[in-house]
Amino acid sequence: MGGPEIERLIELLARLPGLGPRSARRAALHLMKRREALLEPLADAMTTAARAIQVCSVCGNLDSRDPCGLCADGKRDASVVCVVEDVADLWAIERSGAFRGRYHVLGGVLSALDGTGPDDLRIASLVARVRGPGDAPGEVREVVIATNATVEGQTTAHYIADRLAGTGVAITRLAHGVPVGGELDYLDDGTLSAALRARRAV
Amino acid sequence: MGGPEIERLIELLARLPGLGPRSARRAALHLMKRREALLEPLADAMTTAARAIQVCSVCGNLDSRDPCGLCADGKRDASVVCVVEDVADLWAIERSGAFRGRYHVLGGVLSALDGTGPDDLRIASLVARVRGPGDAPGEVREVVIATNATVEGQTTAHYIADRLAGTGVAITRLAHGVPVGGELDYLDDGTLSAALRARRAV
Repeated sequence: MGGPEIERLIELLARLPGLGPRSARRAALHLMKRREALLEPLADAMTTAARAIQVCSVCGNLDSRDPCGLCADGKRDASVVCVVEDVADLWAIERSGAFRGRYHVLGGVLSALDGTGPDDLRIASLVARVRGPGDAPGEVREVVIATNATVEGQTTAHYIADRLAGTGVAITRLAHGVPVGGELDYLDDGTLSAALRARRAV
Repeated sequence: MGGPEIERLIELLARLPGLGPRSARRAALHLMKRREALLEPLADAMTTAARAIQVCSVCGNLDSRDPCGLCADGKRDASVVCVVEDVADLWAIERSGAFRGRYHVLGGVLSALDGTGPDDLRIASLVARVRGPGDAPGEVREVVIATNATVEGQTTAHYIADRLAGTGVAITRLAHGVPVGGELDYLDDGTLSAALRARRAV
């Protein structure tokens, strides 16, 4: 209807998560009507990102620097490493502002179904990071395993805990419990049981 | 978290219709993980579209050519012009495959609230197109007004019909009625009344 250039744009936009064929068409029109305000800046931002963004060789984060800004930040506590499945999880924890240590991004979870084994994840580099160079004790004192509370996330957490056993570092995981602002009536039984078992003195 | 390049990409993606801040972050991560398969092709497609796409000087459609592919297609019936609010409406009618004439894209609707008057829409060029050069009778025989069935769309339709009165062309509008596949029980009263009034012999 508007030539192959528009068709191609719609086809690629439709491959973004959250956009289907219909919303991709809307997005393409929206972009073409805002050529200078949005289409050109977005094209530039994508080109820049494609050139600049790389995977941090230390932790697996995405950044325009290697090591990434978090690994290079001397003010962050290098003795605590938080292990997450994905960069999105790292972003979520950073947004909370509650963690000032370093990260390690696995790049997925163990999954027999998807055929994802330990060698497909950044587990060996985590173990090496914790052990320190030449098997001398490294600077890591605690590993917080923050994989998702799914079956696969928990399996991965157990596997990592096993691999780190004997290194002498403390291995912790995020607490389960009632979400802040959550209503008990709407909570699943598993979370409620976990919150009861982990109850604390007021 | 990943440098200003990522922040910028997320900020611009969040301005697409259908994407909020959260889904823009997901989309940015999705893109960065698929640099060669998606991020680079999409950046190229946007750059190409920004350079190539223009507004058709005849009908207001978006295309890499001017006149657009539809206006330049000699196999389409130039005696029938379908007037739509937006390029999205033109695309919708084209997808239906039920129309083989030409189009005229208004670029909006009359709206006192938004301060959109006749001069803000492609109405003068529609009238000129219908009148033909030098007020000699043009080749247009029928104008199908296909504005949306909203108050503003209908107001715009009436205004256009008034402006075209006396040109001698037939002025028609899309039929109202029961959507194909629609259930009467779920239909609004206005549509049902319109469908009854426009009932036809079987």
